[in-house]
Amino acid sequence: MTGEDLAALGEFGLIERIRARLGEPSDGVLVGPGDDAAVLTPPSRGLVATTDMFVEGVHFDLELSPPLDVGFKSIAASCSDIAAMGGRPQYALLSLGATSSTPVETIDGLYKGIDEAQRELGVRLAGGDVVSSEKLVLSVTVLGEQAPGGSIRRAGAQPGDLACVTGELGAAAAGLALLRAVDDAAARDLLAKYPALAEAYRRGRARIREGQRAAEAGVGAMIDVSDGLAADLGHVCDESGVGIEVRAADIPLAPGVPEVASWVGEQAERWALGGGEDYELAIAVAPQRFDTVQKAVAPTRLTVIGTFLAGDKRAGIESSGWDHFRRGSA
Amino acid sequence: MTGEDLAALGEFGLIERIRARLGEPSDGVLVGPGDDAAVLTPPSRGLVATTDMFVEGVHFDLELSPPLDVGFKSIAASCSDIAAMGGRPQYALLSLGATSSTPVETIDGLYKGIDEAQRELGVRLAGGDVVSSEKLVLSVTVLGEQAPGGSIRRAGAQPGDLACVTGELGAAAAGLALLRAVDDAAARDLLAKYPALAEAYRRGRARIREGQRAAEAGVGAMIDVSDGLAADLGHVCDESGVGIEVRAADIPLAPGVPEVASWVGEQAERWALGGGEDYELAIAVAPQRFDTVQKAVAPTRLTVIGTFLAGDKRAGIESSGWDHFRRGSA
Repeated sequence: MTGEDLAALGEFGLIERIRARLGEPSDGVLVGPGDDAAVLTPPSRGLVATTDMFVEGVHFDLELSPPLDVGFKSIAASCSDIAAMGGRPQYALLSLGATSSTPVETIDGLYKGIDEAQRELGVRLAGGDVVSSEKLVLSVTVLGEQAPGGSIRRAGAQPGDLACVTGELGAAAAGLALLRAVDDAAARDLLAKYPALAEAYRRGRARIREGQRAAEAGVGAMIDVSDGLAADLGHVCDESGVGIEVRAADIPLAPGVPEVASWVGEQAERWALGGGEDYELAIAVAPQRFDTVQKAVAPTRLTVIGTFLAGDKRAGIESSGWDHFRRGSA
Repeated sequence: MTGEDLAALGEFGLIERIRARLGEPSDGVLVGPGDDAAVLTPPSRGLVATTDMFVEGVHFDLELSPPLDVGFKSIAASCSDIAAMGGRPQYALLSLGATSSTPVETIDGLYKGIDEAQRELGVRLAGGDVVSSEKLVLSVTVLGEQAPGGSIRRAGAQPGDLACVTGELGAAAAGLALLRAVDDAAARDLLAKYPALAEAYRRGRARIREGQRAAEAGVGAMIDVSDGLAADLGHVCDESGVGIEVRAADIPLAPGVPEVASWVGEQAERWALGGGEDYELAIAVAPQRFDTVQKAVAPTRLTVIGTFLAGDKRAGIESSGWDHFRRGSA
């Protein structure tokens, strides 16, 4: 198999290979890969649906992430969007663009990661498409079931709500900085000391349990931290028509982030606010519900980092997030 | 607006522009574009789901198709997959990859075509993603409701079933040949004489009504003709474990296809068998049900072009369809 590429395998050989790797459909998949469309048992409550595209050289770099992790992250990132609504991911569809010269080994790695993600996150890959494209492109759709009490929107933050965040931030940005500096012995030492940083960048995550528990406990608004905490809190303010004051010093940083930031000559808070891809949940919680929500998401940490305000003041979220098209976006 | 590009508009400016163009969510869309995920009223029967990726330079060429038609076709092609199961398309999700230098005019054209498609085909664009990529990439997911009697699979053809096809074939391939030869005055004359050929290539179609009616009338297997009639009938044989004999002379050709084929020096039957993208439905029908199915899909034509056989003989479908990765695929 070594050295074989997609030109040798062909489109339909590839589809067969994917079907064999992923096994027989199950868990609500009535018709799986290999027909014109998948047929799925619909959720009994609202159907939550999200789609994301991951482009080589933009969203991932095979020099920094093995195909296994790229595949895993593509599914996890979309599941994170479902989690941010309080929903439960059930099914995934994946379109893959690759060149004829893509090694079959790379494709096998991607689908191994996708398979790991579906087992770990409770989704089933139910269908997809394979096409030729110059760069590797993964386009993922995840479908799921909405929270029993209804979906949690970006638009539900009220003035006076606490701005909270699950887990810890900055890990993905710190991991990326170290992976880019891997020729340096000190970077390699830091990678060995904090392996969770590289893993955070490479694999992403989806706070599915936390999103469901928070939705049940009663929260006002929720969003996943994919563009960067500052930008994502800005989206909540935009949709809710509120302002915000964030205390940067209160943002929980992942272990190793301050040390790596100091080594790189960056401010750890800037990574936490602008780095993106931490896939934690930012949540607006009424003060009287905070204890309940905190207990609901435990043992994952829930930390208050600021307050939503009446009006349009935005303090502490000046750091800009990622914009795919702006010149000089960072 | 003339001359403005995505770098000037920015990712979030583009998202706002798309939301404004597409209007407020409706028709079962509980939460539309602008949140982490869409929330949709689930179908009461099985959920049919399909995803397709369209890459500039592979699936479309902006020299040959205006953005309006590229947008329309991206939705229509996925709806065609739902039609091939006998289902009813309801919702669409679209991820768009574009460069910073893509003119806003191009994006506006794409979304105008998408808007036309959603009105004409009865689907609602409920969400999506916009990312940067070197080539334009549209990744479309369409969700719908399965046929009342269950989905029609590729796997249901029986020996003795008639191989039938809706409408007429070869139009997309003939249209593409003419558009590629547009510098030639004779090609321009043929394009003016048969405008439906260029339209067939540029806009695609989805035989939604015919697929639903055929499913209700009772058919064995169904597939849409996207890879090419020969390849798609081959897929039905693969999945059903049957053979086939097709009479090429019986394949209905779209008006103008023989004349254009003769002008290009190509065989019209080769286009009908191998050209692909006609988005007609190929259907396996038990002989005693043929009249019923033919009446059900009328006024669209249903033509018998061959017979499914016991065993693995395949006659009359030697012309190969499109394979995205094979060297020399055509």
